[in-house]
Amino acid sequence: MGSDIHHTLLTDGRLDRLHTVARIDTTTTITTIDDADPATAARLARTEVLFTHWGAPALTEDALRRMPRLRAVVHAAGSVKHHVTDAVWKHGITVSSAAAANAVPVAEFTLAAILFAGKRVLDIAHAYARTRTRPGLLPYYTGHGNYRRTVGVVGASRVGRRVIELLRPFDLHVLLYDPYVDPAEARALGAEPAGLDELAARSDVVSIHAPQLPETRHMFDARRLALLKDGATLVNTARGSLVDTDALTAHLRTGRLNAVLDVTEPDLPPADSPLYTLPNVLLTPHIAGSLGTELGRMTDWAVDELARYARGLPFAHPVGPQELTRSA
Amino acid sequence: MGSDIHHTLLTDGRLDRLHTVARIDTTTTITTIDDADPATAARLARTEVLFTHWGAPALTEDALRRMPRLRAVVHAAGSVKHHVTDAVWKHGITVSSAAAANAVPVAEFTLAAILFAGKRVLDIAHAYARTRTRPGLLPYYTGHGNYRRTVGVVGASRVGRRVIELLRPFDLHVLLYDPYVDPAEARALGAEPAGLDELAARSDVVSIHAPQLPETRHMFDARRLALLKDGATLVNTARGSLVDTDALTAHLRTGRLNAVLDVTEPDLPPADSPLYTLPNVLLTPHIAGSLGTELGRMTDWAVDELARYARGLPFAHPVGPQELTRSA
Repeated sequence: MGSDIHHTLLTDGRLDRLHTVARIDTTTTITTIDDADPATAARLARTEVLFTHWGAPALTEDALRRMPRLRAVVHAAGSVKHHVTDAVWKHGITVSSAAAANAVPVAEFTLAAILFAGKRVLDIAHAYARTRTRPGLLPYYTGHGNYRRTVGVVGASRVGRRVIELLRPFDLHVLLYDPYVDPAEARALGAEPAGLDELAARSDVVSIHAPQLPETRHMFDARRLALLKDGATLVNTARGSLVDTDALTAHLRTGRLNAVLDVTEPDLPPADSPLYTLPNVLLTPHIAGSLGTELGRMTDWAVDELARYARGLPFAHPVGPQELTRSA
Repeated sequence: MGSDIHHTLLTDGRLDRLHTVARIDTTTTITTIDDADPATAARLARTEVLFTHWGAPALTEDALRRMPRLRAVVHAAGSVKHHVTDAVWKHGITVSSAAAANAVPVAEFTLAAILFAGKRVLDIAHAYARTRTRPGLLPYYTGHGNYRRTVGVVGASRVGRRVIELLRPFDLHVLLYDPYVDPAEARALGAEPAGLDELAARSDVVSIHAPQLPETRHMFDARRLALLKDGATLVNTARGSLVDTDALTAHLRTGRLNAVLDVTEPDLPPADSPLYTLPNVLLTPHIAGSLGTELGRMTDWAVDELARYARGLPFAHPVGPQELTRSA
């Protein structure tokens, strides 16, 4: 892993816990394999499991030759795309990643966004700051609320599935669009399966959890955004490219739709974008994923994986070559 | 109930459902008992259960004399204080209220507020709108996040208990202060019992769910607010009088604390109050309780109670004279 990770992310007694599950020198970080000094090279030659994090060197055929005893890679962060090469799979080395741990905070952010959107909380707060009078309750709020309303989940990804789980304690009806999930599985998850246009037309809140692929680019284009109900909220914590930002902005300007956007296209909206200031938009700079203490969850999951390995159990969060091509 | 309630709140097929559980004339609303016309008086004389809502006439000794067969009152809204008098208890009439249904949306609002507060979502959104650049992730967010952080729940009221339940799927540690809950019960609820000062000092988010009583006035006064950690968030969806607003505002102005305030003292802050505009404050006009579709939950619960009564079962949400004196 990168040399700065050790002190920044492996905190709160996590190095101590590593000692309890593995024979490891936690005072030394290996940042390079090919140019390793003789002492490190000797340790690599004995290494059975690599504990990796951001900045890990690529595990090429050449690197693997220096680790003849390597049997597993445990990554304490999300994607392993940057260091796990085809050589790793070819040698039958098993890989675990904490990507699922990174889905947790995204789903939690989404849940809070859905609950606030259902009551139009931020919109009402803006109006309150503007008028500084208390609105009459009944007429003003008709149709708002988190009872018997419909949430459309787009994509049964890790995040999408966790969002559906987190929505269970609430009196909300969940629609799911995912072309790779059959209707029975959708129902087992607790959602009603729906086509994407149907979901757009029926949902009070639409939350996007689809992968970024050529065929999902502008999944919410002008035509589909026009299907959304008046007053509906679009939540995007996935990828900016899934939504046609210009088409959405037109609906947001008129107040017909509301949005919670943690990602946009481009990543940083131009300085004169109305997304920064519209009262019916909550715009955040890609913070739904792991932040602050949430990075510690990924480390804890990775240490748990090491503990499983030490007891001879399979990984709880294995990654294979097929996951790498499907995920965002 | 009031004459306007019928069409505004008993919607979405709820009157039809009433027909399935009771012999009832849903086209007529009884707004007065003492001055009832002869036809209504004759119906009151046969009435076994009253289905009440906002604006129900007081059930005095005199009113009860006109309903000799009355055995139960089912209230499709929160407090029954306005129409249930001592005479009702004296005659052994059982009462059910949908007050617990009103706790549900308050707890849901609170959950969303806690999750957003943990990541400082609204604060970050304000900073993003101001700077229009993307902050560097690691240094900026250290210490934020919803993993292994502490939420202090003040008061195991209906709302407080539901908040603790809703927090279960999250990796958050919950402290509970309630002088009427013993430590074993607190632990059974899923919380660590704590004194109020200890809770204030240890929590990253403090959420108030205490009743409004003489002894809880300014429960969060200048001394106790000073115990809160730098960067902590105070959530108040209970009663404005529980917090010394001036003392809190001083901490909010400096940015030392953050707040989510659905109630304040006075109810409407003066027009020049910084609470309306501070980026670290979410101020809403008492909307956490039932709004819009959420009012329908109370009606549905009341119809369920009638159905239980019709099957000879006890009420799921009974109210007695002791609940009336203890509740906010």
